[in-house]
Amino acid sequence: MALLVQKYGGTSVANANRIKEVAERVVSTVKQGNKVIVVVSAMAGETDKLTKLSSKITDTPDEREMDLLLSSGERITSALTAMAIQRLGFKAMSFTGRQVGIITDSTHTKAMIERVDADRLVRAIQEDKIPVVAGFQGINEFSDVTTLGRGGSDITAVAIAAALKADLCEIYTDVEGVYTTDPKIFKKAKKMEKISYDEMLEMASLGAKVLHGRSVEFAKKYNVPLVVRSSFNKTPGTLVIKEDKDMEKIVVSGVAADKNQARITIMGVADTPGIAANLFNAIADENIIIDMIVQNISSDTKATDISFTVSRADCKKAFEITRKVSDKLGAKGVNMNRDLAKISIVGVGMVSHFGVAASMFDTLAKHGVNIMMISTSEIKISCVIDVKHTETAVRALHKAFNLENI
Amino acid sequence: MALLVQKYGGTSVANANRIKEVAERVVSTVKQGNKVIVVVSAMAGETDKLTKLSSKITDTPDEREMDLLLSSGERITSALTAMAIQRLGFKAMSFTGRQVGIITDSTHTKAMIERVDADRLVRAIQEDKIPVVAGFQGINEFSDVTTLGRGGSDITAVAIAAALKADLCEIYTDVEGVYTTDPKIFKKAKKMEKISYDEMLEMASLGAKVLHGRSVEFAKKYNVPLVVRSSFNKTPGTLVIKEDKDMEKIVVSGVAADKNQARITIMGVADTPGIAANLFNAIADENIIIDMIVQNISSDTKATDISFTVSRADCKKAFEITRKVSDKLGAKGVNMNRDLAKISIVGVGMVSHFGVAASMFDTLAKHGVNIMMISTSEIKISCVIDVKHTETAVRALHKAFNLENI
Repeated sequence: MALLVQKYGGTSVANANRIKEVAERVVSTVKQGNKVIVVVSAMAGETDKLTKLSSKITDTPDEREMDLLLSSGERITSALTAMAIQRLGFKAMSFTGRQVGIITDSTHTKAMIERVDADRLVRAIQEDKIPVVAGFQGINEFSDVTTLGRGGSDITAVAIAAALKADLCEIYTDVEGVYTTDPKIFKKAKKMEKISYDEMLEMASLGAKVLHGRSVEFAKKYNVPLVVRSSFNKTPGTLVIKEDKDMEKIVVSGVAADKNQARITIMGVADTPGIAANLFNAIADENIIIDMIVQNISSDTKATDISFTVSRADCKKAFEITRKVSDKLGAKGVNMNRDLAKISIVGVGMVSHFGVAASMFDTLAKHGVNIMMISTSEIKISCVIDVKHTETAVRALHKAFNLENI
Repeated sequence: MALLVQKYGGTSVANANRIKEVAERVVSTVKQGNKVIVVVSAMAGETDKLTKLSSKITDTPDEREMDLLLSSGERITSALTAMAIQRLGFKAMSFTGRQVGIITDSTHTKAMIERVDADRLVRAIQEDKIPVVAGFQGINEFSDVTTLGRGGSDITAVAIAAALKADLCEIYTDVEGVYTTDPKIFKKAKKMEKISYDEMLEMASLGAKVLHGRSVEFAKKYNVPLVVRSSFNKTPGTLVIKEDKDMEKIVVSGVAADKNQARITIMGVADTPGIAANLFNAIADENIIIDMIVQNISSDTKATDISFTVSRADCKKAFEITRKVSDKLGAKGVNMNRDLAKISIVGVGMVSHFGVAASMFDTLAKHGVNIMMISTSEIKISCVIDVKHTETAVRALHKAFNLENI
């Protein structure tokens, strides 16, 4: 007997019929002798509908109110899914974020989980009930509803799997697994059988939308084995686990593309200590995540240019902040490029192979793709390019590293 | 400075624009120097939408899950309304049933309020915040969401007004007040300036849909003055208060019609003690409310017929239970009439006037309306009739008691 957490995304619970199908899958897993905890997202379209309603009322909704508003979607699905399982003659029981004991900090709309008080959940499982948890939400110390931000329901699933030491956390979605690259960009993309946490983490943070980085981090930290698979068929999916020897044989295992990048450059700022801290603290205060940072020596040797990338959604806010800081510091000016993409190659095998970066730059150059910024980690190399070159770059790299044949 | 509770019904918050109008009314009340607590219903249509979703999944939804499902509607409105007030530059803050401290029993879908732990609400008011409470919901001892049943948001408003000793509880709806009879049935119905709790209670329980009986009972018990008024204009509405001398001058103040009645008769049951208790306990166990009960001596002197009325929605369930009890007791049989209406005249002045009942029966007889059951209280006389005579009866009684000229 295994303890499984099954998380179903928005498209998997998009309507009453899909919810009934989810119930059947859950029940068939239980009939095979497993204990199952279900975690559900809001029905596809529901969160957008609520966001639109709020935007008709105000352009700057209070984040505490936004959390109460958006948390409704998952609560609705959890009640409906529990009903659908009960209809099949099994004991099911919905759990809100509070009831499942997800205690978070107070960063509304992007809260971090502090702990999981799973007593009631454990009791339900001991009583052979199938818990159906509303994903994406928790409560803070004031008993206010918080939401976990993007990929929040995945995080809920992994956090519960970690707290209860589940044998496996299955993430059901509308794709069959993790691909060597986005199949929408390149049709020859291949599904991977398995991938390491670190690779997945790089893929996720780089724009492969299957799993959000925070859920993978959580899974890695608590060593929760994940499976990404489709709720529409029985195909096995991709296993996300600790790296093993097999994985190291493959130098590059995937190409990721993030088409939502923007770059901001502050020019001619005095090259003295504390300047960068000044700027990036101001941006962090607004909960904006900065990705790459590059500092150049400008023509004037006493001054410097600093460039950084943020997601396009945050770029307006980041630009305003940077302009204010620029004025205060007496810099020469600030400019922004909103139409950028980040292309990355990822692979745990990279660590022990030379020339991977050179080979990437070479491939891009051959295809006329200009590189604007570069950043590297042990298992990843990323290049910022013009967004219009995204498809060309992905295809060329997929071929160059022979990903069609892995 | 007065402390006001303002409750806005589903049509008053039906869309983003209406919610903005509610915010403006709230803010204008605050600007006049009052403290305001807002209580909101689900947006019109929202509860139906959720109920339909659940009925696509199962015919017999679990009531705990139903409560979680339905409570979402009011949470959504409270978040949106708080945003709309904040947009006007005022401090607002949403409160869920839990946060406002509404503690109920565990009768899911029809929970009773046990107490209101209003500490957090009081603190918010002291900090000059405008609380926006999600109506219709509370939590039970297990920390599960409960809902208060029909008229639940009115009950929330009155309970909060009672707990905080508010000066007035305003119920905003889509009608301008309480009428001498249902204006949809009889156009010449007139709006009352004021009405006593007891009269309102009779009117409410008799099918005048403006205010639910439980909220009026609550208001009477804690002496909370109520106003029923429209959120679409500035018309003053109807005041619901303790009875005064003015009121006693009017013998009959209103005619109420309830077109959703059904009668069940159990025939030829042994006339021994405990029989009625047996039957009505079984029905009460299913949380079905019985209205009138009439017991006749049947042709067989050792046996009796018992008739009772329930709302049409409950009649199928009540019929099944009665049949089972009938079999057990060896009664002759059970029959049911589903197409009945209850017509009532109400007035505190009735106590001190003779001949009111006779005049009612006389009027109905003159118009060819057959009376099937009668029940009376100090301030009310009700007759069960065929539902097809409803309009005729209302018009005739409205005229007979001269309600057009009060």
